[in-house]
Amino acid sequence: MSYLHALNWRYATKKMDPSKAVPTEAVERIVEAARMAPTSSGLQPFVVLLVTNPEVKTRLATACYGQQQLVDASHVLVFAAWETYSSERIHAAYDVVAAERGGLNPGLIAYRDRLLASYPNRPAEENFHHAAKQAYIAMGFSLMAAALEGVDSTPMEGFDPAAVNEVLGLPAKGLRVATILPLGYRDAANDWLVNLKKVRRPRKDFVIDVG
Amino acid sequence: MSYLHALNWRYATKKMDPSKAVPTEAVERIVEAARMAPTSSGLQPFVVLLVTNPEVKTRLATACYGQQQLVDASHVLVFAAWETYSSERIHAAYDVVAAERGGLNPGLIAYRDRLLASYPNRPAEENFHHAAKQAYIAMGFSLMAAALEGVDSTPMEGFDPAAVNEVLGLPAKGLRVATILPLGYRDAANDWLVNLKKVRRPRKDFVIDVG
Repeated sequence: MSYLHALNWRYATKKMDPSKAVPTEAVERIVEAARMAPTSSGLQPFVVLLVTNPEVKTRLATACYGQQQLVDASHVLVFAAWETYSSERIHAAYDVVAAERGGLNPGLIAYRDRLLASYPNRPAEENFHHAAKQAYIAMGFSLMAAALEGVDSTPMEGFDPAAVNEVLGLPAKGLRVATILPLGYRDAANDWLVNLKKVRRPRKDFVIDVG
Repeated sequence: MSYLHALNWRYATKKMDPSKAVPTEAVERIVEAARMAPTSSGLQPFVVLLVTNPEVKTRLATACYGQQQLVDASHVLVFAAWETYSSERIHAAYDVVAAERGGLNPGLIAYRDRLLASYPNRPAEENFHHAAKQAYIAMGFSLMAAALEGVDSTPMEGFDPAAVNEVLGLPAKGLRVATILPLGYRDAANDWLVNLKKVRRPRKDFVIDVG
Protein backbone atom coordinates (compact mmCIF):
# COMPACT_ATOMS: atom_id res chain seq x y z
CA MET A 1 0.00 0.00 0.00
CA SER A 2 1.50 3.35 -0.98
CA TYR A 3 1.83 5.83 1.85
CA LEU A 4 -0.61 8.29 0.27
CA HIS A 5 -3.14 5.49 -0.03
CA ALA A 6 -2.59 4.72 3.65
CA LEU A 7 -3.02 8.39 4.59
CA ASN A 8 -6.31 8.48 2.72
CA TRP A 9 -7.42 5.28 4.43
CA ARG A 10 -6.72 6.56 7.94
CA TYR A 11 -9.12 8.85 9.78
CA ALA A 12 -9.65 9.91 13.37
CA THR A 13 -11.55 6.80 14.40
CA LYS A 14 -14.56 7.60 16.54
CA LYS A 15 -15.58 4.03 17.39
CA MET A 16 -13.04 1.27 17.98
CA ASP A 17 -13.93 -2.43 18.06
CA PRO A 18 -13.18 -3.54 21.63
CA SER A 19 -12.97 -7.19 20.55
CA LYS A 20 -9.86 -6.66 18.41
CA ALA A 21 -6.37 -6.10 19.77
CA VAL A 22 -3.44 -4.75 17.80
CA PRO A 23 -0.60 -7.31 17.71
CA THR A 24 2.23 -6.43 20.06
CA GLU A 25 4.77 -6.50 17.21
CA ALA A 26 2.81 -3.84 15.29
CA VAL A 27 2.51 -1.67 18.40
CA GLU A 28 6.24 -1.95 18.94
CA ARG A 29 6.95 -0.84 15.37
CA ILE A 30 4.59 2.12 15.78
CA VAL A 31 6.39 3.09 19.00
CA GLU A 32 9.75 2.56 17.30
CA ALA A 33 8.73 5.06 14.60
CA ALA A 34 8.20 7.64 17.36
CA ARG A 35 11.56 6.77 18.87
CA MET A 36 13.25 7.32 15.50
CA ALA A 37 11.64 10.72 14.95
CA PRO A 38 14.02 13.66 14.77
CA THR A 39 13.89 16.21 17.56
CA SER A 40 15.43 19.60 18.15
CA SER A 41 19.13 19.13 19.00
CA GLY A 42 18.40 15.41 19.32
CA LEU A 43 17.15 15.83 22.87
CA GLN A 44 13.99 13.69 22.49
CA PRO A 45 12.34 15.78 25.22
CA PHE A 46 9.41 13.46 25.83
CA VAL A 47 8.46 9.88 26.59
CA VAL A 48 5.74 7.57 25.31
CA LEU A 49 3.56 5.90 27.93
CA LEU A 50 2.08 2.64 26.70
CA VAL A 51 -1.24 1.83 28.36
CA THR A 52 -3.17 -1.43 28.03
CA ASN A 53 -4.72 -1.91 31.49
CA PRO A 54 -8.54 -1.58 31.26
CA GLU A 55 -8.79 0.29 34.54
CA VAL A 56 -6.15 2.84 33.55
CA LYS A 57 -7.77 3.24 30.11
CA THR A 58 -11.11 3.91 31.79
CA ARG A 59 -9.59 6.53 34.08
CA LEU A 60 -7.91 8.11 31.05
CA ALA A 61 -11.24 8.21 29.22
CA THR A 62 -12.77 10.06 32.16
CA ALA A 63 -9.92 12.60 32.00
CA CYS A 64 -10.61 12.92 28.25
CA TYR A 65 -14.26 13.88 28.52
CA GLY A 66 -15.48 10.32 28.12
CA GLN A 67 -13.91 9.52 24.75
CA GLN A 68 -14.73 5.83 24.50
CA GLN A 69 -11.92 5.08 22.05
CA LEU A 70 -9.56 5.15 25.00
CA VAL A 71 -11.41 2.21 26.51
CA ASP A 72 -12.09 0.29 23.29
CA ALA A 73 -8.58 0.67 21.83
CA SER A 74 -6.29 -2.18 22.82
CA HIS A 75 -3.30 0.15 23.26
CA VAL A 76 -3.04 3.82 24.13
CA LEU A 77 0.09 5.88 23.50
CA VAL A 78 0.44 8.97 25.67
CA PHE A 79 3.09 11.43 24.52
CA ALA A 80 4.30 13.27 27.62
CA ALA A 81 6.79 16.10 27.21
CA TRP A 82 9.40 17.40 29.61
CA GLU A 83 7.84 20.17 31.69
CA THR A 84 11.08 22.09 31.13
CA TYR A 85 14.67 21.65 29.99
CA SER A 86 17.19 21.17 32.80
CA SER A 87 20.97 20.87 32.80
CA GLU A 88 20.60 17.28 33.99
CA ARG A 89 18.36 16.34 31.09
CA ILE A 90 20.60 18.00 28.50
CA HIS A 91 23.68 16.33 29.96
CA ALA A 92 21.92 12.97 30.01
CA ALA A 93 20.98 13.27 26.33
CA TYR A 94 24.53 14.10 25.28
CA ASP A 95 25.92 11.39 27.54
CA VAL A 96 23.94 8.91 25.42
CA VAL A 97 25.48 10.39 22.27
CA ALA A 98 28.96 10.16 23.80
CA ALA A 99 28.43 6.55 24.84
CA GLU A 100 27.14 5.55 21.40
CA ARG A 101 29.80 7.36 19.41
CA GLY A 102 32.78 6.88 21.69
CA GLY A 103 32.90 10.46 22.88
CA LEU A 104 31.83 13.91 21.74
CA ASN A 105 33.73 15.95 19.19
CA PRO A 106 34.56 19.58 20.05
CA GLY A 107 31.73 20.86 17.86
CA LEU A 108 29.14 18.84 19.73
CA ILE A 109 30.58 19.82 23.11
CA ALA A 110 30.34 23.49 22.14
CA TYR A 111 26.79 22.94 20.86
CA ARG A 112 25.77 21.20 24.08
CA ASP A 113 27.28 23.97 26.14
CA ARG A 114 25.28 26.59 24.25
CA LEU A 115 22.11 24.64 25.07
CA LEU A 116 23.17 24.41 28.72
CA ALA A 117 23.69 28.16 28.80
CA SER A 118 20.28 28.99 27.35
CA TYR A 119 17.51 26.38 27.68
CA PRO A 120 17.47 25.97 31.48
CA ASN A 121 17.11 29.74 31.84
CA ARG A 122 14.06 30.07 29.61
CA PRO A 123 10.56 30.12 31.14
CA ALA A 124 9.25 26.60 31.79
CA GLU A 125 6.15 27.29 29.70
CA GLU A 126 8.27 28.22 26.66
CA ASN A 127 10.33 25.07 27.16
CA PHE A 128 7.25 22.88 27.49
CA HIS A 129 5.79 24.25 24.26
CA HIS A 130 9.09 23.57 22.53
CA ALA A 131 9.30 20.04 23.94
CA ALA A 132 5.67 19.33 23.07
CA LYS A 133 6.28 20.33 19.46
CA GLN A 134 8.96 17.65 19.24
CA ALA A 135 6.46 15.15 20.64
CA TYR A 136 4.06 16.16 17.88
CA ILE A 137 6.62 15.23 15.22
CA ALA A 138 6.92 11.83 16.87
CA MET A 139 3.16 11.44 17.09
CA GLY A 140 3.08 12.23 13.37
CA PHE A 141 5.51 9.37 12.79
CA SER A 142 3.38 6.99 14.89
CA LEU A 143 0.21 8.12 13.12
CA MET A 144 1.71 7.44 9.72
CA ALA A 145 3.27 4.18 10.90
CA ALA A 146 -0.12 3.03 12.21
CA ALA A 147 -1.73 3.81 8.86
CA LEU A 148 0.98 1.84 7.05
CA GLU A 149 0.33 -1.06 9.45
CA GLY A 150 -3.42 -0.94 8.77
CA VAL A 151 -3.98 0.03 12.38
CA ASP A 152 -6.55 2.66 13.30
CA SER A 153 -5.80 5.53 15.61
CA THR A 154 -7.32 8.71 16.97
CA PRO A 155 -5.01 11.66 17.61
CA MET A 156 -6.35 13.47 20.67
CA GLU A 157 -5.93 16.88 22.20
CA GLY A 158 -9.36 17.02 23.83
CA PHE A 159 -8.58 16.28 27.45
CA ASP A 160 -8.19 17.86 30.86
CA PRO A 161 -4.37 18.02 31.03
CA ALA A 162 -4.24 18.18 34.83
CA ALA A 163 -6.49 15.12 35.09
CA VAL A 164 -4.43 13.11 32.57
CA ASN A 165 -1.22 14.12 34.33
CA GLU A 166 -2.69 12.91 37.62
CA VAL A 167 -3.92 9.55 36.26
CA LEU A 168 -0.44 8.76 34.96
CA GLY A 169 1.59 10.32 37.77
CA LEU A 170 3.34 12.64 35.34
CA PRO A 171 4.14 15.59 37.63
CA ALA A 172 6.39 13.42 39.82
CA LYS A 173 8.34 12.56 36.65
CA GLY A 174 8.67 16.18 35.51
CA LEU A 175 6.37 15.46 32.58
CA ARG A 176 3.14 16.91 31.18
CA VAL A 177 0.78 15.33 28.67
CA ALA A 178 1.19 16.68 25.14
CA THR A 179 -1.05 14.45 23.04
CA ILE A 180 -2.67 11.00 23.12
CA LEU A 181 -2.99 8.32 20.44
CA PRO A 182 -5.22 5.26 20.99
CA LEU A 183 -4.49 2.32 18.66
CA GLY A 184 -7.08 -0.25 17.64
CA TYR A 185 -9.42 -1.24 14.84
CA ARG A 186 -12.42 0.69 13.61
CA ASP A 187 -15.92 -0.56 14.34
CA ALA A 188 -17.13 0.56 10.93
CA ALA A 189 -20.75 -0.39 11.55
CA ASN A 190 -20.97 1.97 14.50
CA ASP A 191 -18.66 4.85 13.57
CA TRP A 192 -20.51 7.98 12.40
CA LEU A 193 -17.37 9.37 10.77
CA VAL A 194 -16.09 6.39 8.81
CA ASN A 195 -18.22 6.96 5.72
CA LEU A 196 -18.06 10.74 5.65
CA LYS A 197 -15.79 12.21 3.01
CA LYS A 198 -12.33 13.18 4.21
CA VAL A 199 -12.02 16.94 3.84
CA ARG A 200 -8.86 18.95 3.36
CA ARG A 201 -8.27 22.39 1.92
CA PRO A 202 -7.46 22.04 -1.77
CA ARG A 203 -3.79 22.30 -2.69
CA LYS A 204 -4.28 25.83 -4.10
CA ASP A 205 -5.33 27.05 -0.65
CA PHE A 206 -2.80 24.94 1.25
CA VAL A 207 0.41 25.59 -0.70
CA ILE A 208 1.91 28.95 -1.57
CA ASP A 209 4.16 28.48 -4.60
CA VAL A 210 6.83 31.05 -3.93
CA GLY A 211 8.90 29.97 -6.88
CA MET B 1 11.75 -0.45 1.80
CA SER B 2 9.98 -0.84 5.13
CA TYR B 3 9.16 2.39 6.90
CA LEU B 4 11.46 1.60 9.82
CA HIS B 5 14.28 0.98 7.38
CA ALA B 6 13.52 4.36 5.78
CA LEU B 7 13.50 6.06 9.18
CA ASN B 8 16.90 4.59 9.94
CA TRP B 9 18.19 5.71 6.55
CA ARG B 10 17.08 9.31 6.99
CA TYR B 11 19.10 11.83 9.01
CA ALA B 12 19.22 15.58 9.30
CA THR B 13 21.32 16.14 6.20
CA LYS B 14 24.07 18.70 6.76
CA LYS B 15 25.35 18.87 3.18
CA MET B 16 23.06 18.62 0.18
CA ASP B 17 24.32 18.02 -3.37
CA PRO B 18 23.39 21.19 -5.28
CA SER B 19 23.64 19.36 -8.63
CA LYS B 20 20.68 17.08 -7.91
CA ALA B 21 17.05 18.16 -7.93
CA VAL B 22 14.15 16.24 -6.42
CA PRO B 23 11.61 15.34 -9.13
CA THR B 24 8.53 17.53 -9.01
CA GLU B 25 6.25 14.49 -8.65
CA ALA B 26 8.08 13.37 -5.52
CA VAL B 27 7.91 16.86 -4.03
CA GLU B 28 4.19 16.97 -4.72
CA ARG B 29 3.66 13.64 -2.93
CA ILE B 30 5.69 14.89 0.05
CA VAL B 31 3.54 18.04 0.16
CA GLU B 32 0.40 15.95 -0.25
CA ALA B 33 1.37 13.94 2.83
CA ALA B 34 1.43 17.21 4.79
CA ARG B 35 -1.95 18.16 3.36
CA MET B 36 -3.41 14.82 4.47
CA ALA B 37 -2.11 15.16 8.03
CA PRO B 38 -4.74 15.34 10.75
CA THR B 39 -5.08 18.61 12.63
CA SER B 40 -7.01 19.73 15.67
CA SER B 41 -10.69 20.09 14.74
CA GLY B 42 -9.63 19.70 11.10
CA LEU B 43 -8.71 23.38 10.85
CA GLN B 44 -5.34 22.89 9.10
CA PRO B 45 -4.12 26.13 10.68
CA PHE B 46 -1.03 26.53 8.53
CA VAL B 47 0.20 26.64 4.96
CA VAL B 48 3.23 25.20 3.21
CA LEU B 49 5.34 27.61 1.21
CA LEU B 50 7.23 25.89 -1.59
CA VAL B 51 10.48 27.66 -2.47
CA THR B 52 12.74 26.85 -5.44
CA ASN B 53 14.04 30.27 -6.50
CA PRO B 54 17.81 30.49 -5.83
CA GLU B 55 17.61 34.10 -4.71
CA VAL B 56 14.83 33.41 -2.23
CA LYS B 57 16.65 30.31 -0.96
CA THR B 58 19.77 32.40 -0.42
CA ARG B 59 17.83 35.04 1.53
CA LEU B 60 16.25 32.24 3.59
CA ALA B 61 19.68 30.82 4.34
CA THR B 62 20.79 34.21 5.64
CA ALA B 63 17.72 34.30 7.90
CA CYS B 64 18.66 30.80 9.09
CA TYR B 65 22.18 31.62 10.26
CA GLY B 66 23.75 30.60 6.97
CA GLN B 67 22.56 27.01 6.80
CA GLN B 68 23.76 26.07 3.33
CA GLN B 69 21.25 23.24 2.90
CA LEU B 70 18.66 25.92 2.16
CA VAL B 71 20.67 26.94 -0.88
CA ASP B 72 21.79 23.49 -2.00
CA ALA B 73 18.39 21.80 -1.60
CA SER B 74 16.33 21.94 -4.78
CA HIS B 75 13.10 22.56 -2.85
CA VAL B 76 12.41 24.14 0.51
CA LEU B 77 9.14 23.64 2.39
CA VAL B 78 8.32 26.36 4.92
CA PHE B 79 5.55 25.47 7.35
CA ALA B 80 3.91 28.76 8.37
CA ALA B 81 1.18 28.70 11.01
CA TRP B 82 -1.73 31.05 11.56
CA GLU B 83 -0.63 33.79 13.93
CA THR B 84 -3.98 33.32 15.66
CA TYR B 85 -7.41 31.74 15.19
CA SER B 86 -10.09 34.12 13.92
CA SER B 87 -13.81 33.68 13.32
CA GLU B 88 -13.19 34.14 9.61
CA ARG B 89 -10.64 31.34 9.48
CA ILE B 90 -12.80 28.95 11.48
CA HIS B 91 -15.81 29.70 9.30
CA ALA B 92 -13.74 29.25 6.15
CA ALA B 93 -12.54 25.82 7.30
CA TYR B 94 -16.06 24.61 8.06
CA ASP B 95 -17.35 26.10 4.82
CA VAL B 96 -14.98 23.73 3.01
CA VAL B 97 -16.39 20.82 5.02
CA ALA B 98 -19.94 21.90 4.19
CA ALA B 99 -19.14 22.24 0.50
CA GLU B 100 -17.49 18.81 0.36
CA ARG B 101 -20.14 16.98 2.34
CA GLY B 102 -23.24 18.79 1.14
CA GLY B 103 -23.79 20.69 4.35
CA LEU B 104 -23.00 20.38 8.05
CA ASN B 105 -24.88 18.14 10.43
CA PRO B 106 -26.13 19.65 13.72
CA GLY B 107 -23.28 18.05 15.65
CA LEU B 108 -20.66 19.73 13.49
CA ILE B 109 -22.45 23.07 13.61
CA ALA B 110 -22.49 22.91 17.42
CA TYR B 111 -18.82 21.91 17.44
CA ARG B 112 -17.88 24.78 15.13
CA ASP B 113 -19.84 27.21 17.26
CA ARG B 114 -17.95 26.10 20.37
CA LEU B 115 -14.69 26.82 18.55
CA LEU B 116 -16.00 30.23 17.46
CA ALA B 117 -16.91 31.02 21.07
CA SER B 118 -13.51 30.13 22.43
CA TYR B 119 -10.51 30.18 20.05
CA PRO B 120 -10.73 33.82 18.85
CA ASN B 121 -10.79 34.98 22.48
CA ARG B 122 -7.62 33.18 23.50
CA PRO B 123 -4.27 35.02 23.51
CA ALA B 124 -2.68 35.07 20.05
CA GLU B 125 0.50 33.49 21.42
CA GLU B 126 -1.45 30.51 22.80
CA ASN B 127 -3.21 30.13 19.48
CA PHE B 128 0.03 30.32 17.51
CA HIS B 129 1.61 27.60 19.66
CA HIS B 130 -1.46 25.45 19.10
CA ALA B 131 -1.44 26.06 15.35
CA ALA B 132 2.31 25.46 15.14
CA LYS B 133 1.90 22.07 16.84
CA GLN B 134 -0.48 21.03 14.07
CA ALA B 135 2.14 22.13 11.54
CA TYR B 136 4.65 19.90 13.30
CA ILE B 137 2.41 16.85 12.77
CA ALA B 138 2.31 17.74 9.07
CA MET B 139 6.07 18.23 8.96
CA GLY B 140 6.36 14.79 10.52
CA PHE B 141 4.29 13.39 7.68
CA SER B 142 6.46 15.16 5.08
CA LEU B 143 9.64 13.99 6.81
CA MET B 144 8.49 10.38 6.76
CA ALA B 145 7.18 10.69 3.21
CA ALA B 146 10.54 12.07 2.08
CA ALA B 147 12.33 9.14 3.71
CA LEU B 148 9.99 6.70 1.96
CA GLU B 149 10.74 8.48 -1.34
CA GLY B 150 14.48 8.22 -0.75
CA VAL B 151 14.66 12.01 -0.56
CA ASP B 152 16.87 13.70 2.01
CA SER B 153 15.65 16.47 4.24
CA THR B 154 16.74 18.60 7.18
CA PRO B 155 14.10 19.60 9.72
CA MET B 156 15.00 23.09 10.93
CA GLU B 157 14.12 25.25 13.89
CA GLY B 158 17.38 27.21 13.94
CA PHE B 159 16.39 30.50 12.37
CA ASP B 160 15.56 34.10 13.14
CA PRO B 161 11.75 33.92 12.95
CA ALA B 162 11.30 37.63 12.27
CA ALA B 163 13.80 37.48 9.43
CA VAL B 164 12.17 34.41 7.84
CA ASN B 165 8.75 36.01 8.19
CA GLU B 166 10.05 39.11 6.43
CA VAL B 167 11.72 37.21 3.57
CA LEU B 168 8.45 35.44 2.77
CA GLY B 169 6.05 38.29 3.52
CA LEU B 170 4.28 36.22 6.17
CA PRO B 171 3.00 39.00 8.49
CA ALA B 172 0.83 40.44 5.72
CA LYS B 173 -0.77 36.98 5.41
CA GLY B 174 -1.37 36.60 9.16
CA LEU B 175 1.24 33.83 9.27
CA ARG B 176 4.41 33.11 11.25
CA VAL B 177 7.10 30.56 10.43
CA ALA B 178 6.83 27.35 12.47
CA THR B 179 9.46 25.08 10.95
CA ILE B 180 11.40 24.60 7.69
CA LEU B 181 12.20 21.47 5.69
CA PRO B 182 14.67 21.59 2.77
CA LEU B 183 14.44 18.64 0.35
CA GLY B 184 17.33 17.37 -1.72
CA TYR B 185 19.98 14.69 -1.88
CA ARG B 186 22.86 14.19 0.51
CA ASP B 187 26.40 14.98 -0.58
CA ALA B 188 27.76 12.03 1.35
CA ALA B 189 31.40 12.79 0.57
CA ASN B 190 31.15 16.18 2.24
CA ASP B 191 28.64 15.65 5.06
CA TRP B 192 30.26 15.32 8.49
CA LEU B 193 27.14 13.73 9.95
CA VAL B 194 26.32 11.08 7.39
CA ASN B 195 28.63 8.40 8.78
CA LEU B 196 28.10 9.09 12.46
CA LYS B 197 25.91 6.59 14.27
CA LYS B 198 22.29 7.62 14.68
CA VAL B 199 21.64 8.01 18.39
CA ARG B 200 18.33 7.65 20.20
CA ARG B 201 17.52 6.90 23.81
CA PRO B 202 17.06 3.14 24.20
CA ARG B 203 13.46 1.92 24.35
CA LYS B 204 13.71 1.32 28.11
CA ASP B 205 14.35 5.05 28.65
CA PHE B 206 11.90 6.21 25.99
CA VAL B 207 8.80 4.13 26.78
CA ILE B 208 7.06 3.82 30.12
CA ASP B 209 5.12 0.55 30.13
CA VAL B 210 2.14 1.48 32.28
CA GLY B 211 0.40 -1.80 31.66
